Amino acid sequence: MSALEFWYEFASTYSYPAAWRIDRLAAAQGVKVVWRPFLVGPLFHKQQGLTDSPFNVVEAKGRYMWRDMERICQAEMLPFRRPRLFPQRTLLAARLALVGAKRGWIASFSRGVYAANFGQDKDISDPAVLSQIVKDVGGDPVADFAEAASDEIKAALRANGEEAEAKGLFGAPSFLVPRGEGYELFWGNDRLEQAIAWAARD
Amino acid sequence: MSALEFWYEFASTYSYPAAWRIDRLAAAQGVKVVWRPFLVGPLFHKQQGLTDSPFNVVEAKGRYMWRDMERICQAEMLPFRRPRLFPQRTLLAARLALVGAKRGWIASFSRGVYAANFGQDKDISDPAVLSQIVKDVGGDPVADFAEAASDEIKAALRANGEEAEAKGLFGAPSFLVPRGEGYELFWGNDRLEQAIAWAARD
Repeated sequence: MSALEFWYEFASTYSYPAAWRIDRLAAAQGVKVVWRPFLVGPLFHKQQGLTDSPFNVVEAKGRYMWRDMERICQAEMLPFRRPRLFPQRTLLAARLALVGAKRGWIASFSRGVYAANFGQDKDISDPAVLSQIVKDVGGDPVADFAEAASDEIKAALRANGEEAEAKGLFGAPSFLVPRGEGYELFWGNDRLEQAIAWAARD
Repeated sequence: MSALEFWYEFASTYSYPAAWRIDRLAAAQGVKVVWRPFLVGPLFHKQQGLTDSPFNVVEAKGRYMWRDMERICQAEMLPFRRPRLFPQRTLLAARLALVGAKRGWIASFSRGVYAANFGQDKDISDPAVLSQIVKDVGGDPVADFAEAASDEIKAALRANGEEAEAKGLFGAPSFLVPRGEGYELFWGNDRLEQAIAWAARD
């Protein structure tokens, strides 16, 4: 079965529709999705010297993005509320997603976090909010939060960030399609269909 | 007839496929296209403090963009050669395009300039290269170059830049669709179909 890596960051606006679309679109083409959470902040800082979202730094870009998100979510029938706080801290959510990767609920957990952030304007750095999402997807908050704080999970998230940089990523969502010894990189929710088509073709 | 404004900059890579696709796609939906050349450099400088293309400033972004352009041009069957010089100086080409707006050849001239820049790796700041394109589209290089240097045309290009900023643009290609008292802004070659659909709907 062909595979596609989905690289996402919970604070990334355009990763929200991508996360909600990817499994359905990939399944329709017989493509397997590997969910790869990472933190984009360190990458933005290292590559662009940014200490805030580019959408906050460049006002015109931010204004456009929020309107674009409204249009996209409307077309996809996804709930959308512009969050009062942007970007949110996503370290705990990303670590929990990696626990979910071991438990089999990374995709549903990740969709839940995006819905909370951009559909319901909830604080996704709040353990109570994340605990509810873990419960909703069938996890065990006490055990899963403990594991999220383990050295293994912390190292795994750091390793994802290093791999993202090594593979040429500079933002989220990004899609990697294996090709020969290397891979093809696609960036942005609007490249999802194309990435799946490339993966299906192999 | 519904109308759509196409805002473009000759140094903008993604404006190349947009320029070659827009008239055909818009005509199929009964949408009229108004070609609006502008200089994006001053906008980048004012909004982002940039003095070079963001694709040169952020290496990973540039590497991705050139590969993405290859894929797009291949899919659209457009010739593509990565230019040795990027970005090129586009002041004279943009002024000539505004002369073309008065003469009726702005669209074909603009497509010619993009093909020269990104399909043939020609120097589009070279008057000889531009003179040939003016001839190819039925213009009169001597008269048209003289007019391109007129105060009227210089002022018109500056006014386009000011209007771009006032209307919230932050890059190229951008598309503006009139809506009520205002307009909808779409950014990027990958938003062209959506912009045309919005224009056709009105």
